[in-house]
Amino acid sequence: MNYPDTIQKLIDCFKKYPGVGSRSAERFALATLSLDKEIVDVFSRSLIDSKTKIKKCERCNYYTEDDLCKICSDKSRNRDSLCLVEDPKSVKMFEDTHIFDGYYYVLNGLISPIDGIEPGDLNIDKLLSLIEKENIKEVIIAVKPSIEGETTSLYISKLLEDKNIIVSRIAQGVPMGADIDYVDSLTLELALENRKKLN
Amino acid sequence: MNYPDTIQKLIDCFKKYPGVGSRSAERFALATLSLDKEIVDVFSRSLIDSKTKIKKCERCNYYTEDDLCKICSDKSRNRDSLCLVEDPKSVKMFEDTHIFDGYYYVLNGLISPIDGIEPGDLNIDKLLSLIEKENIKEVIIAVKPSIEGETTSLYISKLLEDKNIIVSRIAQGVPMGADIDYVDSLTLELALENRKKLN
Repeated sequence: MNYPDTIQKLIDCFKKYPGVGSRSAERFALATLSLDKEIVDVFSRSLIDSKTKIKKCERCNYYTEDDLCKICSDKSRNRDSLCLVEDPKSVKMFEDTHIFDGYYYVLNGLISPIDGIEPGDLNIDKLLSLIEKENIKEVIIAVKPSIEGETTSLYISKLLEDKNIIVSRIAQGVPMGADIDYVDSLTLELALENRKKLN
Repeated sequence: MNYPDTIQKLIDCFKKYPGVGSRSAERFALATLSLDKEIVDVFSRSLIDSKTKIKKCERCNYYTEDDLCKICSDKSRNRDSLCLVEDPKSVKMFEDTHIFDGYYYVLNGLISPIDGIEPGDLNIDKLLSLIEKENIKEVIIAVKPSIEGETTSLYISKLLEDKNIIVSRIAQGVPMGADIDYVDSLTLELALENRKKLN
């Protein structure tokens, strides 16, 4: 004996989400029954909207409901600087720090021959023409430190050689609050190698 | 800088669910963008349906989309036996064991003076008239072992005194697989008190 169809369908849908098992999906489905009707209406509509209204920004590939995303539409930012990130979520992370005032470019992936992701699968042609067209002076590569991150970083910096552009990569090292005992040896090695002179 | 409105609304809606914080809500909202459109359509429709189609069974208060729930509509079950549970979820739990073949009655709460839940707030009048009308012969009280469970159980068994009905309560004791060291002392006390003769 199952729940009524509607509840069962809700359970099945919640189960499609990452990290949601049968128990959580059941809990969420039943919790829906106690939510205010207004919230459920907004939820239902936003789900549909997420499939119809959300697209990639024409310039940087970040999420947007218009042709250009909110960041690319903001003319007050620093036009010289472009920050390369792996995915749209990274843009949000950087924006939340309020430190970077340039623009972003979302690669939507990293080069990974094992997973069959070749340079051609990333939006690199579009990136190069953007850099050229908009006369970008500094490219900051902000992808994660991993084999794929290294490869992508190296590939892009090679492409930008001889173009009179400053190319940098965000620092790798021991993260804030981390216990040295628990940091992996590769991170420690990098942190030591990239040590900063204090005096 | 926030996500586009649609994504932000999704995040806010997911945050209304039990145990879902900002990080999980964001993860779920972004995961929605990668789900198949068909799934999102079903999800969206089921959310609305959960508010419009799901109601309480006229007879037992369990979830249903019709007047009677699937269980109460099933005439092949044992008409003599009625199992009293706290909430609709308990019905599903018992049904999943495939052991009980009678009918259920959902109290939708337990007597709890501290929380202001008096006997009148439960569906006890409806329960009594159901027992009378349908000539129920056995009532099994299957509420959780707690102060509120005790109170509710005692209250209902008092009401059914002198009615020539067998009233029982599901056994309390050490659960399967539990380490005796980790079972609380009240459970152990009950388990000892309700010990079962083996020879």
